[in-house]
Amino acid sequence: MRMSRMLFETRRRVAQDGDLPSQQLVLRAGLARQVASGIYALTPIAVRTLRRLETIVRSEMDAVGAQEVLLPVVHPRELWEASGRFSSVDDTLVRFKDRTGHGMVLAMTHEEAATDLVKAFVHSARQLPQLIFQIQTKFRDELRPRGGLVRLREFLMKDAYSFHPSPDDLDALYQEMLKAYQRIFARTGVPVVTVASDTGFMGGTTAHEFMLLAPGGEDTLVLCRSCGYAANREVAVSTPPVRREPAGGPDTPQEVDTPGADSIGTLSQRYGWAADRMLKTVYRLTASGRIVVALVRGDREVNEVKLCRALSEPLLPLGPARAAELGLAPGFVGPGPGLPRGVLVVADTAVDGGPWVTGANRPDAHRVGMRLGRDFPVDISADIGLVQSGDTCLRCGAPLEFARGIEVGNIFKLDTVYSEKMGLAFTAPGGASFFPWMGCYGLGITRLLAAVVEAHHDERGIVWPPAVAPWPVHLLTTHADPNVQEAADQVYGRLGEEAALYDDRLLSAGVKFQDADLLGMPVRITVSPRSLAQGGVELYRRRGGERRVVSLDEAAAAALAWAADGSLL
Amino acid sequence: MRMSRMLFETRRRVAQDGDLPSQQLVLRAGLARQVASGIYALTPIAVRTLRRLETIVRSEMDAVGAQEVLLPVVHPRELWEASGRFSSVDDTLVRFKDRTGHGMVLAMTHEEAATDLVKAFVHSARQLPQLIFQIQTKFRDELRPRGGLVRLREFLMKDAYSFHPSPDDLDALYQEMLKAYQRIFARTGVPVVTVASDTGFMGGTTAHEFMLLAPGGEDTLVLCRSCGYAANREVAVSTPPVRREPAGGPDTPQEVDTPGADSIGTLSQRYGWAADRMLKTVYRLTASGRIVVALVRGDREVNEVKLCRALSEPLLPLGPARAAELGLAPGFVGPGPGLPRGVLVVADTAVDGGPWVTGANRPDAHRVGMRLGRDFPVDISADIGLVQSGDTCLRCGAPLEFARGIEVGNIFKLDTVYSEKMGLAFTAPGGASFFPWMGCYGLGITRLLAAVVEAHHDERGIVWPPAVAPWPVHLLTTHADPNVQEAADQVYGRLGEEAALYDDRLLSAGVKFQDADLLGMPVRITVSPRSLAQGGVELYRRRGGERRVVSLDEAAAAALAWAADGSLL
Repeated sequence: MRMSRMLFETRRRVAQDGDLPSQQLVLRAGLARQVASGIYALTPIAVRTLRRLETIVRSEMDAVGAQEVLLPVVHPRELWEASGRFSSVDDTLVRFKDRTGHGMVLAMTHEEAATDLVKAFVHSARQLPQLIFQIQTKFRDELRPRGGLVRLREFLMKDAYSFHPSPDDLDALYQEMLKAYQRIFARTGVPVVTVASDTGFMGGTTAHEFMLLAPGGEDTLVLCRSCGYAANREVAVSTPPVRREPAGGPDTPQEVDTPGADSIGTLSQRYGWAADRMLKTVYRLTASGRIVVALVRGDREVNEVKLCRALSEPLLPLGPARAAELGLAPGFVGPGPGLPRGVLVVADTAVDGGPWVTGANRPDAHRVGMRLGRDFPVDISADIGLVQSGDTCLRCGAPLEFARGIEVGNIFKLDTVYSEKMGLAFTAPGGASFFPWMGCYGLGITRLLAAVVEAHHDERGIVWPPAVAPWPVHLLTTHADPNVQEAADQVYGRLGEEAALYDDRLLSAGVKFQDADLLGMPVRITVSPRSLAQGGVELYRRRGGERRVVSLDEAAAAALAWAADGSLL
Repeated sequence: MRMSRMLFETRRRVAQDGDLPSQQLVLRAGLARQVASGIYALTPIAVRTLRRLETIVRSEMDAVGAQEVLLPVVHPRELWEASGRFSSVDDTLVRFKDRTGHGMVLAMTHEEAATDLVKAFVHSARQLPQLIFQIQTKFRDELRPRGGLVRLREFLMKDAYSFHPSPDDLDALYQEMLKAYQRIFARTGVPVVTVASDTGFMGGTTAHEFMLLAPGGEDTLVLCRSCGYAANREVAVSTPPVRREPAGGPDTPQEVDTPGADSIGTLSQRYGWAADRMLKTVYRLTASGRIVVALVRGDREVNEVKLCRALSEPLLPLGPARAAELGLAPGFVGPGPGLPRGVLVVADTAVDGGPWVTGANRPDAHRVGMRLGRDFPVDISADIGLVQSGDTCLRCGAPLEFARGIEVGNIFKLDTVYSEKMGLAFTAPGGASFFPWMGCYGLGITRLLAAVVEAHHDERGIVWPPAVAPWPVHLLTTHADPNVQEAADQVYGRLGEEAALYDDRLLSAGVKFQDADLLGMPVRITVSPRSLAQGGVELYRRRGGERRVVSLDEAAAAALAWAADGSLL
């Protein structure tokens, strides 16, 4: 492709936007243009890489026997009412009415549509398992889209759905898919860590995310270098440090005036109580209207995702007005006497028998000597603590580490959540009816493009991995000299427009080199009076920076070989 | 692909829906499932052909130097306000508000987004022409979606947009595109007629449609077999039959009582006036609120599309209440005295000087002897007649013919409509500023799939052209006999799952043959005890019906060769 004819524009800088270098680079290299918040147009350079990513993803889906389908973007509301998500999902799901007044949604995911398709076409358990996938536009009206192509409202996604005659069969495919995903990331040059993750609004039981480690990533990961345990902090488990011995003090409940001391920090400082001897109390409202008081050790935090899972329903904040109405005293709430009737008490598993210091359920007072069971009941005991620095691995006892990551794919065991809700049932050989076990497997193709840039760049620009580079070769001339021009045209003729991006613009060599570095094709061929005097053209490898002069005749083949596998012919 | 594992289901019959055989066949062969009116999920069989169609379309777009981009489906309303289409397009354009209350639309076409992209990235006239395309989902909230995949609300479309430094440059590319489209239709096996067409809501000056002739098609085409003139009836021009001599009668205006005679037919029957001596009068309201009275010869009809073009604005019906309020007497309106002030009179070019019989603008009365100019003024004279049977070709005088067709693609010269409205301007070499001339080029990929089926089927089912068949070969066994099974597995092993659809189901041979006919792969290989006794397998060509027995060893290669070019190895 001749750059003089190409739709592109590089920029030296763009307005600061986001913590990820890829966000800047995608815009500086002219891969995308923002049309609205979280909505981008992709330019020819980006689409070339997008198609290569799609080809890799398709080949790995073929390899696990997935059948490609194409489900619609616009769904009738009935489909989402069947699963219950028409009302349970927040405004991320765009709802609108069509010209006849019929309720429609923009599909943010396709469990419903996939289940509906299988229900229409598969009538015998003998036809199971079924595995379908598509590559298609998704729209999610995110509250906070990020700059660049990482968290978009509209994006291209590969999503797959599987339907199984048994949980074991789902298990087996889930493992195969996990490996297929790892192959996809290996082939596209995105090193990922596979972590256990939350199932979120998908429902289901088990889920994994594929994370590219990046300091500016949105997610926090908990990793054990010793045994390989890896999880999103949202679901990570750990062994907290052992609680220190109770430092004397009474073992019977006793109220203590603590005027204005409404935080663990102030109490600790003012009264010398160790944080891990106090109970931190958090109150929330559940989607069904229950009031919940969650208890963790004073030196820990509540993990809201785990708390939701313990309660099996979404949580909402409980505002000050409602709290006052219920008689909750912010900063002084505790599980003991004075808590309004009907409040559900959830205690973290790290909360032992006590004695504990707790809020006294009236302003400016706490209670000491509170024992779990004896002095306050607990309705649910569950792991609701956020893993934190100093925790050790639950599996092997080694210290846990933290890292930031960008989620580039996720897979879920949905079990029978959707097949039950949508009435997809089969008859087993014995005559009994069953709901098939389902899995779903997502991979954002547009985000994968951003992840490649995030994983492969330096201070000068993008460094495309050869397998997904828009072109393997970037050809440029330094002078408008006719000999240089003729030589470059000759090399371009050999390479063809599919293999070479040809900077034939009448610009200074400096600008052209800068653009070549920014655009990041694997091998650059420079044709200059000097290279011709040296007997040919200069090859330069973007990753590594090696240079070599080869003859005009060898140039095309040598550059392609170098681009493909890193070795010169 | 083994059919025992495939997501598909054939049906003997489906509920009657539409006039096109493809509508039935698409559903009977299980290519698609309706999710909502005009919204379909495509199954694995259909997607295989869809990908082949996309590959052909992409290669022809590459051949004319088009650069692939990916524009979003969801646009901010500002983009459509810039072109004026946010308000001018009817409810076919879905408008909704995002979670922040911002107005958004579902893009039904991408002139605005394409112009905006070029405006962002192209800053010099030296970078013109630019030609971009995408293959992407469109949503059009059609009032009347048709069954099958012909008129969908959601569909996959290839749309291209070009930007030129001069009208001549646009002209040249327009012709190239026209040829590229013809190559696409030739390669995909859809014989088309290229017809002049209306520019509709696109604006612009010149447009062509590519029409597959089909008795059940939505469009009516006007064709001249002699000189090749071809146009959509919406814009077709013709020479009407010469008006008969005025059959005597007065040449001065004179009112005649015509009680209850409110139609040309009744007048003609009751008073013996020839239809072509009377004026047919139609009244309409324009979008800007003007009242229009359109006149055609009594033996002709008004072409509303031409009338819109003559007025340069959309037309609305003028209801009975409003007509009564204006003093219009339905069935007795005429261009002469009594017509309300300010009404715009548009006369067809076939309306000569007269004398004419016209409505008298009061109930139950007409006027005879009315001469154009002398007795009634005309504001606009334009070709607003609908071409009808008996008309002759304006170019060569030969009789015109009519045919029905399905539009499978359209191309438009937009000229500077969008570049002006959206402020895309460049500086010419002389220093003058200019708006680039634009073209746009649409092709519905999903509709193309339906058109292939429409063009290639017989009473037993689809007959895929080899270039776009889901698989070249359909392999089937007639008996569960182990020898048959083993032989078929051997042939399948040679062909591979990309080349063969393998009916390995435990069903009767009759059902399997019926499905093979319905699904329509180019070559069928039958493995049966009889074929094995005859020394191999039976090859059967779906188009033409030739049969031949070949050895097991030859089977795969012979079938593929036969599928590809119609000749046996």
